[in-house]
Amino acid sequence: MSKHIPSRLYLSEEELPKYWYNLRAFMKNKPAPMLHPGTLKPATADDLSAVFCKECIRQELDETTELIPIPDGILEFYRAYRPAPLIRAYFLEKALGTPAEIYYKHEGTNTSGSHKLNSAAAQAFYAKQDGLTSLTTETGAGQWGSAMAMACAFYGLDLTVYMVKISAEQKPYRKALIETYGATLIPSPSNTTEAGKKILEKMPGTNGSLGCAISEAIEKAVKTEKCRYVLGSVLNHVLLHQSIIGVECKIAFDKYGVKPDIIIGCAGGGSNLGGLIAPFMGEKLQGKSDAKIIAVEPASCPSFTRGKFAYDFGDTAQTTPLIKMYTMGNGYIPPAAHAGGLRYHGMNSTLSQLYHDKFIEARTAVQTEIFDAAVKFAKIEGILPAPESSHAIKVAIDEALECKRTGEKKTIFFGLTGTGYFDMSAYMQYNAKTMSDHIPTDEELENGFASLPKV
Amino acid sequence: MSKHIPSRLYLSEEELPKYWYNLRAFMKNKPAPMLHPGTLKPATADDLSAVFCKECIRQELDETTELIPIPDGILEFYRAYRPAPLIRAYFLEKALGTPAEIYYKHEGTNTSGSHKLNSAAAQAFYAKQDGLTSLTTETGAGQWGSAMAMACAFYGLDLTVYMVKISAEQKPYRKALIETYGATLIPSPSNTTEAGKKILEKMPGTNGSLGCAISEAIEKAVKTEKCRYVLGSVLNHVLLHQSIIGVECKIAFDKYGVKPDIIIGCAGGGSNLGGLIAPFMGEKLQGKSDAKIIAVEPASCPSFTRGKFAYDFGDTAQTTPLIKMYTMGNGYIPPAAHAGGLRYHGMNSTLSQLYHDKFIEARTAVQTEIFDAAVKFAKIEGILPAPESSHAIKVAIDEALECKRTGEKKTIFFGLTGTGYFDMSAYMQYNAKTMSDHIPTDEELENGFASLPKV
Repeated sequence: MSKHIPSRLYLSEEELPKYWYNLRAFMKNKPAPMLHPGTLKPATADDLSAVFCKECIRQELDETTELIPIPDGILEFYRAYRPAPLIRAYFLEKALGTPAEIYYKHEGTNTSGSHKLNSAAAQAFYAKQDGLTSLTTETGAGQWGSAMAMACAFYGLDLTVYMVKISAEQKPYRKALIETYGATLIPSPSNTTEAGKKILEKMPGTNGSLGCAISEAIEKAVKTEKCRYVLGSVLNHVLLHQSIIGVECKIAFDKYGVKPDIIIGCAGGGSNLGGLIAPFMGEKLQGKSDAKIIAVEPASCPSFTRGKFAYDFGDTAQTTPLIKMYTMGNGYIPPAAHAGGLRYHGMNSTLSQLYHDKFIEARTAVQTEIFDAAVKFAKIEGILPAPESSHAIKVAIDEALECKRTGEKKTIFFGLTGTGYFDMSAYMQYNAKTMSDHIPTDEELENGFASLPKV
Repeated sequence: MSKHIPSRLYLSEEELPKYWYNLRAFMKNKPAPMLHPGTLKPATADDLSAVFCKECIRQELDETTELIPIPDGILEFYRAYRPAPLIRAYFLEKALGTPAEIYYKHEGTNTSGSHKLNSAAAQAFYAKQDGLTSLTTETGAGQWGSAMAMACAFYGLDLTVYMVKISAEQKPYRKALIETYGATLIPSPSNTTEAGKKILEKMPGTNGSLGCAISEAIEKAVKTEKCRYVLGSVLNHVLLHQSIIGVECKIAFDKYGVKPDIIIGCAGGGSNLGGLIAPFMGEKLQGKSDAKIIAVEPASCPSFTRGKFAYDFGDTAQTTPLIKMYTMGNGYIPPAAHAGGLRYHGMNSTLSQLYHDKFIEARTAVQTEIFDAAVKFAKIEGILPAPESSHAIKVAIDEALECKRTGEKKTIFFGLTGTGYFDMSAYMQYNAKTMSDHIPTDEELENGFASLPKV
């Protein structure tokens, strides 16, 4: 007999996980190593030490430790906003008339509004542990900048956020949130770095780009004493921190005897998808589960479905180590879609390897379809989702309707990465029916691929 | 031996309350009855039936039933976003260095961003039960309009929201949120009602006011078939629905053997304060508790501390029944402070009677002090509070620091009514140090009192 499943599955404080799940330790085909861009040899801890905190580098390079204990100082911060609720979507099931059971993990109940805080907390804690006094980072849509500002306020670190200029202008309230938490926000490109000055000289009226903001943030970190750089996605230590999402869900599911058949996450750089699926993929790799795992990416930035599996730079200024990943090419400039958190040319290396080895499926969706799903979900489940999260909602609804067609009672589980409170201009466009879609042409793709380095 | 108190006290689904707490049933001195403005006799159910739903009227007039069962159809909605977390403020206690224990109930985790949803759900449910097809309401700051839009989307009702014109212009994202949930939003005053047309004729460039928006919403409801009007505060049935806040806390506190010594809530029309304190005040009235209960109101709109205890209209157009309350006079126009949810000239009649009988204390604070407390709280506890809620935070911090001075280990409990995600322009003003305070002069008060009806 199956237990009654409450609408919201909260873990108690004692049940909260005390470790992160290192997915790479369970992979037979490990992700290819990061390469030093000059020597083309695997990057060492030493190579990375000018830019990143010590423990983050150690975690970045650790492919064998299965479970990594979370330090008390981070657990303390997690208790300020976790557990994130795991929700049984009874209303959505009923509205769709599906025999499927639908669950989602809601990571948007904290003030930064997304899962990004899980890694921000860890990276700020390790920076403090290293005796640093400040950090730098970049932000596009603003979730990561908000999360880092909160974490730095908590641990007592100064933070400089390079925010893509057009985003800072279009999202004054995101900017205000970041500044309220005490961070210094600099619209990028700026005159505060050589990289910024160069770009401003070449393109005086530019709106900025994530690639440029990354270059400025790294330069500022390297040139400042007791300062390092932090990144909110793409890297493996970020995915490790995000595994708290999946581990919490796994504990709750096991408690109620639930086994998801389909797991769905939106995919930009991979921080949410990698964290959400970690322990479930671990079981799959060990032959203990045959759950279908689906990545959903924007049709405008389809790195899994239309990208190449190749070594590429993490930034458009071509300063980072080379990462083997599914990529559109570092020169690919994604169109100005509203899911800013998914507008990244490449994909985390671990997820790329798993996709290559067919452990992950991928789908795309255009943004008007995404917002159809978002508004439907908001009205039925009562939560206004972020545009990024709505990619997963779209495919979860598709899968639930497929179950309705076939009569199968599958268990569908997706990640709701965050809320859309700071994305209302997108909803306004959607409501006014002035939102458009963009599917890149083959020529646009070729232009992006032309920027791939020869390795 | 005292139990370990977790950071977040969540009730399980089975522990969730199934009744509302009718505070009036425990009062020896009942609040004075509402009067019909024409006859000056106590308003009957019949008098109110053109405007309000049947069950809401019944609840409005019920002064004897202690516990009122919550219908299943409302409990179902509550399960979509409740329990709201009751949080032990370990971080704040530590930061203040106080021996006091601090708790707060966080009502802002739902998409409408505040406690308003608790009554919106009930009122929409009862409207549906009455066979209505649409509702009307007004909104100033926007929390109530958002909550009603969500509830009407859920129960399948059309909703027209008259939003104070200046608010609709200054808060385009609040407007967008309300419209995303399918409601029709009309900036008030408008040409859609006689009341609106009259005001536009008299004052063509007016910014609108809550009083005017109420008049338009009531007129529209009365003139539309199968339509009624709903209000988000001031009335006793609204406070009844909001008692879910206090009852949830009481259950959680009892479970852990905690007894608050000081209970603090912000006070505008009274919906939060009345709901938060209900079961605790009930114990106090029965001599089972001597907890100190503190209402915090803006210095710019001090109905408890500087108002008169008199019969007054609920709206500035003088169309509602007369309510005996602490009031600044229906003609008092509160200055444009950022805590829009507290900008109301009067106070619920039950709370007014309790204040008159000295069961409640009241304090005021100016808005720059309020935002000092808000930003401190955001950085320490990680939650960006609404300006309204920050009134309670301010006094909770004051009380905790008083405990530090005296060495007393009191238990302080306050209501965090909501989040500030849609109030970022206020935070921007505060960050830029351009925020000002306004304390009304005696002359301004006298002008307000001059509008009091002669009863």
